[in-house]
Amino acid sequence: MTEPFQTLNEVAGILRDLPGPHEDARANAASRNASLTKPPGALGRLEELAIWYCAWRGDPRATLRTPQIIVFAGNHGVTAQGVSAFPADVTGQMVANFEAGGAAINQLAQVADATLDICPIFLDQPTVDFTQGPAMSEAEVVAALRTGWQTVDPSADLLVVGEMGIGNTTCAAAMALALYGGTAADWTGAGTGVTGVALQAKTDAVARGVATNPQAVGDGFEALRCLGGREIAAMAGAILRARVAGIPVLLDGYICTAAAACLHAVSNDALDHCVAAHVSDEAAHGALLERLGKAPFLALQMRLGEASGGAVCIALLRAALACHSGMASFEEAGVSSH
Amino acid sequence: MTEPFQTLNEVAGILRDLPGPHEDARANAASRNASLTKPPGALGRLEELAIWYCAWRGDPRATLRTPQIIVFAGNHGVTAQGVSAFPADVTGQMVANFEAGGAAINQLAQVADATLDICPIFLDQPTVDFTQGPAMSEAEVVAALRTGWQTVDPSADLLVVGEMGIGNTTCAAAMALALYGGTAADWTGAGTGVTGVALQAKTDAVARGVATNPQAVGDGFEALRCLGGREIAAMAGAILRARVAGIPVLLDGYICTAAAACLHAVSNDALDHCVAAHVSDEAAHGALLERLGKAPFLALQMRLGEASGGAVCIALLRAALACHSGMASFEEAGVSSH
Repeated sequence: MTEPFQTLNEVAGILRDLPGPHEDARANAASRNASLTKPPGALGRLEELAIWYCAWRGDPRATLRTPQIIVFAGNHGVTAQGVSAFPADVTGQMVANFEAGGAAINQLAQVADATLDICPIFLDQPTVDFTQGPAMSEAEVVAALRTGWQTVDPSADLLVVGEMGIGNTTCAAAMALALYGGTAADWTGAGTGVTGVALQAKTDAVARGVATNPQAVGDGFEALRCLGGREIAAMAGAILRARVAGIPVLLDGYICTAAAACLHAVSNDALDHCVAAHVSDEAAHGALLERLGKAPFLALQMRLGEASGGAVCIALLRAALACHSGMASFEEAGVSSH
Repeated sequence: MTEPFQTLNEVAGILRDLPGPHEDARANAASRNASLTKPPGALGRLEELAIWYCAWRGDPRATLRTPQIIVFAGNHGVTAQGVSAFPADVTGQMVANFEAGGAAINQLAQVADATLDICPIFLDQPTVDFTQGPAMSEAEVVAALRTGWQTVDPSADLLVVGEMGIGNTTCAAAMALALYGGTAADWTGAGTGVTGVALQAKTDAVARGVATNPQAVGDGFEALRCLGGREIAAMAGAILRARVAGIPVLLDGYICTAAAACLHAVSNDALDHCVAAHVSDEAAHGALLERLGKAPFLALQMRLGEASGGAVCIALLRAALACHSGMASFEEAGVSSH
């Protein structure tokens, strides 16, 4: 396989020249939707989901056959600041659990009839504690982006990316603060379950991270490099590869959305092939989605990561496409349309 | 089959003596949930859904194998008041569409791997226009309740009921007004898509319906008889049978919820085996669910009826139960729990 890119500058080049949706397929899908035996709009957001998917697949009656779920994992130096309710060892333990089939995402992938790939990235090499300096070098962030890019199956027809990485809601909060401003408290939440003094330590780490890395402010790539992590950069790389390969994406939770936001900060249309699967219970996720103009499809108070919210949303897409592709028109069914 | 009941008084007797959930199964399910490899509560409302289902099935590790969806259909004299965007003939036309497999619910039942039963009830005998008098006699409402009761498959392990009946959001609004008060406008919405003058005519019909049938005010059975319809009473009968048979229920939209509300008005715990699958785009559905203390699991702006929202929610229950039953515990997986 030829290397897709060697530098952030080359990634920027890809982001400047992204393929768009198939407007003819979108128009034909909308036209078909209007003919089906239901009052106009009565399937609500399922109609939006079906038409979006058809537009990006270039097929006005698209089907879903080969969804791929990828869970990237990474470790974070910022855990030294006491930001998580769990020790950093849990990242690797959970990867073993994924590989043994015992985690939530294993069950959710199975019910969604999706393939599941687990991609741990240098778990024995945590990123630099970003309160002390940039989390990654350019070479490291590019390598992680490339790992994400290369893990996508180009024959997939849907991508869901997620993550495991103790400490990574702290990264996501710092990235959001760098990209959108406000206060550290605006973007910092409970993660796996920190409260009180520990939540204050986490919020402080977020504020110090951005203060330590001023180059990350308002800069998508620098936010990803200085405040992100390997699994976060890999999610961004995978989302980008999906776009180039014509694969629609369901965004998962706060950390996945923060990864996506870095692409959006570089190129405003970078996430047009993505929808927000859900809004999680992590306090700032809704605000982050608003910055991206994405209205979530589910709101189940989930806050697990692991691509779990995205995986649950696959069922909504299946339902939407089944109606879109399988329903009779008013004419076919002999039903009065008004 | 022996007849389950012959009078509303006998139905009231059933409602006075309802079986409760299995508290031992609930406790064991909650205990299992707490042991699984995720931060406590991280699967959000999926955890609630799994534990609810286990409690009502009497199995702390319950599985879903035989969900049943039933769509009841009926016609309504109140359509004479110009309350719908579609002619009454569409009820029968849509039943033919259900039977031919062309409607949304056919596709949704298939993706949910659920059986689908279509039950039209005397479509050639519309109920009395309730602005002129009671929609049904006691014999008629009891017959419809019995039809609902008898259509439930006692070996089902989940029930979703829905309806088709041009004019029946007008019934639901009148029933809600009779049960909960307020103004007709509070409870009357667009239904299949009425606006402006037609919406005003619909609202007036709702107000006149309750004025014409004062015995319905605050009385669940009389609201069902005087302002409901055959498919609405059948949904109530099916929900009641499910309770007696130990079958959990996913409530669908506004009309289904209004049917359920009649049972709730007779017996406050009558809907404890039910959850609200979704909140529809019909304006008053959310308010009606609040009166029943039910928080919906989905909010997709659907407003189709046909059990469609309930059918989509089956996927959430499958996801919830897959996690609940399939995940490893912290101990089994060797993951540090704190």
